[in-house]
Amino acid sequence: MTSTDTTTQGHEAAALLEHTRSAVDPHLRSAVESLPGGMRRVAMYHFGWENADGSPASGQAGKAIRPALVIAAARAMGGDPDRAVRAAVAVELVHNFTLLHDDVIDEDATRRHRPTAWAVFGVPDAVITGDAMLALAQRLLADDAHPAAARASSRLSSCVIELCAGQQADCAFEERGPDEVSLDECLTMATAKTGALLGCACALGALYAGAEERDVGAMDGFGREAGLAFQLIDDLIGIWGDTARTGKPVGADLAAHKKSLPVVAALTSGTPAAAELAALYKGPMTTADEVARAADAVERAGGRDWAQVCAGDRMARAAHHLSRAVPDLASAGDLMALAEFVTRRSR
Amino acid sequence: MTSTDTTTQGHEAAALLEHTRSAVDPHLRSAVESLPGGMRRVAMYHFGWENADGSPASGQAGKAIRPALVIAAARAMGGDPDRAVRAAVAVELVHNFTLLHDDVIDEDATRRHRPTAWAVFGVPDAVITGDAMLALAQRLLADDAHPAAARASSRLSSCVIELCAGQQADCAFEERGPDEVSLDECLTMATAKTGALLGCACALGALYAGAEERDVGAMDGFGREAGLAFQLIDDLIGIWGDTARTGKPVGADLAAHKKSLPVVAALTSGTPAAAELAALYKGPMTTADEVARAADAVERAGGRDWAQVCAGDRMARAAHHLSRAVPDLASAGDLMALAEFVTRRSR
Repeated sequence: MTSTDTTTQGHEAAALLEHTRSAVDPHLRSAVESLPGGMRRVAMYHFGWENADGSPASGQAGKAIRPALVIAAARAMGGDPDRAVRAAVAVELVHNFTLLHDDVIDEDATRRHRPTAWAVFGVPDAVITGDAMLALAQRLLADDAHPAAARASSRLSSCVIELCAGQQADCAFEERGPDEVSLDECLTMATAKTGALLGCACALGALYAGAEERDVGAMDGFGREAGLAFQLIDDLIGIWGDTARTGKPVGADLAAHKKSLPVVAALTSGTPAAAELAALYKGPMTTADEVARAADAVERAGGRDWAQVCAGDRMARAAHHLSRAVPDLASAGDLMALAEFVTRRSR
Repeated sequence: MTSTDTTTQGHEAAALLEHTRSAVDPHLRSAVESLPGGMRRVAMYHFGWENADGSPASGQAGKAIRPALVIAAARAMGGDPDRAVRAAVAVELVHNFTLLHDDVIDEDATRRHRPTAWAVFGVPDAVITGDAMLALAQRLLADDAHPAAARASSRLSSCVIELCAGQQADCAFEERGPDEVSLDECLTMATAKTGALLGCACALGALYAGAEERDVGAMDGFGREAGLAFQLIDDLIGIWGDTARTGKPVGADLAAHKKSLPVVAALTSGTPAAAELAALYKGPMTTADEVARAADAVERAGGRDWAQVCAGDRMARAAHHLSRAVPDLASAGDLMALAEFVTRRSR
């Protein structure tokens, strides 16, 4: 693909996301506003619609990638995208439930350039509001008269369990030494933590278009593989940065000793640079020089190349899954544009 | 009711609970065993089926009151109790999801005479496993071909949101001064935190028996009112104890400055004893003498009598709701026995 194509698709994707936001946001917001007082306040803050004091805020409630995937998948499978809005809202609520809880668990103090909900309202309120958002997502599907609603609810519940497994594996990895996490374990964790919900979003769109199980599964595969490609690129940015675009400082993940995919690929490479990296990971890595040496070791151990090749491979697999569900790839243009959009940031 | 009747009903209820355990446990256990490894381990420990090291334990997974209500309600409404087992499992999973999260939020270190899950496995694992249990409950209903499954799922989700609201209100009350919580607020909180799930259990049983919305609502009312009566009795035990039966030490709730229902009734009574109690609640209350004085103040301010009268009143309301749903009270004997069982502990 030429850079002009990428730019075009980027514009397409941005327009799609914008369109999704305007179709989904009113429903998302009215669902959140149906929560009882205290939780509504935490949720309104989390979504960027209110400040901590309850005054209106004009913040963005994220990029709406997952709802856009639901709607694009419904359209690609010949369904009426309007009927899939409720499922799109449910997926976005599940995504935000995981953000609320993950921030508590990871003790992350910043999200979308603001203090996280637990940092403002305390851990109990953040946990409770996350719980309520998950229940709200399920209620939206339970109340939906669409014939696919029950299957969608079952898939979404299974996906939540997989997200939980991914988050738990991620926490467990942090406790282990730098030589004690295999690349396979790390890929499984990333698939569960990131791929599962993107896959579920596409699968729900297909279900709401009346697709057969085989095609629903292929759509899930598309979202999962694109999600893993996205995670690989995100991990690369976490090491080599893309400060202008993402606000993430160079080397942030290394300084935090994160066992991201390129790092684990490097650590398990059996190269001299792997041993060097392991030694750095056993120390505090507080200076910029140490962080730079770690980044260099990841690169020399082949972690950077591996991640880039692997991301490309996963995108190819994603396209293959998509072609199984939607033989006429012209109908799948929106989905490919979205997949390219989420993975293009480092290109 | 004579004491002989109470004893008979107690035996009846115990037999019912025993029978429910044996009908529900295999399904509950196989649902829990379907969780991915790390979460399964936390859940198996929480339910008392495994020790912290993963070896088998013979502990009791609670009294199974909520599943027993689901099944008894289904039978009372003329349904097939066997078809309601899945709903009973879902309700029990939701109950245990709230226990896992509430213990984290309240920093309670002991549950069912063992260290709580977070105390053994850490806060992240307890939060994540609770999340997965909630999703598992929803998946059970989503996968159920019973025509009432979607309505049951919607009710269960609404109930979870109410449980969350109750837990949040409870946390908020702890932050406020002794004069700043009204009795109405406290009753609403207790209804949300305890009554809602007992009501939902009865409502789901009715739904699975094919009951009409009016009767489902009456069943919900029965469970809610019985739940509130239960809470009132539990709060009395938290002050005056019933150590032989419950293991709760006398005055435990007072020493913890809990704003339980009898305490708030006393604090808002406008009596001189109320002022005395408020003063004690503003101090540390570390000595046995101070705790005894607080208990005495609750009693002199009328909190003890109020709670006992209110519990009786709520049980009468429960019976009234039940008679609306089941005009032939003979068919509702199991439900009344269960309601008496949960509230008889102080009698």
